Amino acid sequence: MDDIPFHVAGWLNTDRPLALGDFRGRVLAVEVFQMLCPGCVLNGLPQAQRLAQTFREEDLAVIGLHGVFEHHEGNSRLGLTAFLHEWRIRFPVAIDAGGDGPLPRTMEAWGLQGTPSLVLIDRAGRMRARHFGQVADMALGAQVARLIGEAAGESSP
Amino acid sequence: MDDIPFHVAGWLNTDRPLALGDFRGRVLAVEVFQMLCPGCVLNGLPQAQRLAQTFREEDLAVIGLHGVFEHHEGNSRLGLTAFLHEWRIRFPVAIDAGGDGPLPRTMEAWGLQGTPSLVLIDRAGRMRARHFGQVADMALGAQVARLIGEAAGESSP
Amino acid sequence: MDDIPFHVAGWLNTDRPLALGDFRGRVLAVEVFQMLCPGCVLNGLPQAQRLAQTFREEDLAVIGLHGVFEHHEGNSRLGLTAFLHEWRIRFPVAIDAGGDGPLPRTMEAWGLQGTPSLVLIDRAGRMRARHFGQVADMALGAQVARLIGEAAGESSP
Amino acid sequence: MDDIPFHVAGWLNTDRPLALGDFRGRVLAVEVFQMLCPGCVLNGLPQAQRLAQTFREEDLAVIGLHGVFEHHEGNSRLGLTAFLHEWRIRFPVAIDAGGDGPLPRTMEAWGLQGTPSLVLIDRAGRMRARHFGQVADMALGAQVARLIGEAAGESSP
Repeated sequence: MDDIPFHVAGWLNTDRPLALGDFRGRVLAVEVFQMLCPGCVLNGLPQAQRLAQTFREEDLAVIGLHGVFEHHEGNSRLGLTAFLHEWRIRFPVAIDAGGDGPLPRTMEAWGLQGTPSLVLIDRAGRMRARHFGQVADMALGAQVARLIGEAAGESSP
Repeated sequence: MDDIPFHVAGWLNTDRPLALGDFRGRVLAVEVFQMLCPGCVLNGLPQAQRLAQTFREEDLAVIGLHGVFEHHEGNSRLGLTAFLHEWRIRFPVAIDAGGDGPLPRTMEAWGLQGTPSLVLIDRAGRMRARHFGQVADMALGAQVARLIGEAAGESSP
Repeated sequence: MDDIPFHVAGWLNTDRPLALGDFRGRVLAVEVFQMLCPGCVLNGLPQAQRLAQTFREEDLAVIGLHGVFEHHEGNSRLGLTAFLHEWRIRFPVAIDAGGDGPLPRTMEAWGLQGTPSLVLIDRAGRMRARHFGQVADMALGAQVARLIGEAAGESSP
Repeated sequence: MDDIPFHVAGWLNTDRPLALGDFRGRVLAVEVFQMLCPGCVLNGLPQAQRLAQTFREEDLAVIGLHGVFEHHEGNSRLGLTAFLHEWRIRFPVAIDAGGDGPLPRTMEAWGLQGTPSLVLIDRAGRMRARHFGQVADMALGAQVARLIGEAAGESSP
């Protein structure tokens, strides 16, 4: 986990900045979104909320990563704060740091293609899945359960 | 129509400012929304798009009225421009003028309770319906068809 | 209306047999379905129920026409009775009479292609629409409202 | 598994009768339904189809159990055959044997309350879950994955 790059310009929905290492020992789901992306609003974010409601907090942590690569001017921190409030999104949300290319720094480092993307990191801090676009609830629930079932040092074949 | 108050701070999706009088002779549907209101994004705006696709342009005009009464800072004109682009909303959108009270001026003058609201104005320029919240597609389609069926000077009993 | 063929082997949800002439003066919507047809169960019949709820009984009558052309053995009258009860379908349902060809007699005479089909008959007893498959609620609501708006002897151009 | 009662009057979608013991070593999902039950048609059966598509056949077997306790006359074997064909249900379906009480024999023996019910039997042949009504896809996917993750002789605490 210490070797997964994570460049963050700020946080919302948490009273202190977080590091990926804070989640070690639990499975971590990172919902990568933009507040103006319809697929994020209609599918990605509601699914992340269902993840947070379905699994126990000690097994799975859910955070958001707001990764702006379009319409920067329409994606202000104040706008994002209001968006999270109106859509009842309660999990911590990191703001991805601006990069040199078209993608923000963390999205670029993680090799993501766009939003929404759901990234799963296992108990041992290894990135295990990067879903771009829609993934079905049943398959995702199964995948998260399998990661939760692994001991912190183990990986299923 | 000339007597319906309409206070607008600006327009998007049109190359010139519009007046309600420009729509005289057609039925006019005004979708009153905020870009950060979930009910507007999930229900009100898609329904307004279906109105524009279902009826002929010479019978029904559809416009939006962006009426911000919460989170002003997160509802910038640039943010709204990006929002309309990402959600593929092509009809003209007016920005309601700020008022003295909690509601913007046009929403206040029209006696609206919140967003989404759908306001129907008949061919003769009279306000005929103010739907707050959800209205079913079938009932709305019927109501609009009845208004379209009226001659410009006539009103059904 | 007297000239629209209507060959019926029986009725459910009504205490006496009906004739198309009984509906003269009102618009009549006929939902043509089979109880084992998924598109009928998922879309056609719920839409017919919404028609019955949206419009006034004195303006619009809604009936079903059960037109079996496949799986006759699995479509018994008792099965249909149970089906209507479980799915809470309250409007009168006619059972189309068996024909000489693959389609039952009324479906054949009406030139229908399959189920679900929604047939609209105007106040003067003329068949005005035959929708095969899905039709959007908004467009259908508008079409029914226009037919309701016509006087019994009149037809819009 | 040998001690789970299973009284069956017949099978569809399989060329030979099956026994619960045939599934030993795999997790078994039994969708208990009636063809005239709306909740089965709208939710239970489509979810069982998603189970069959989401998991590998060597990990999870899916079968149906048609348990008629209402409208016997409308639930004939021929009707059920046509129903499975029209709704594209491909997994084997057992027909529960008639019992002495209101419920058929297997449903009675399993202590089920009605339909739809989803029963999960683990690799070692023990009944592990009986979901009556709706269960969310995400939670169900997780539960099935946990059962699949157990060795045949083991049970998680």
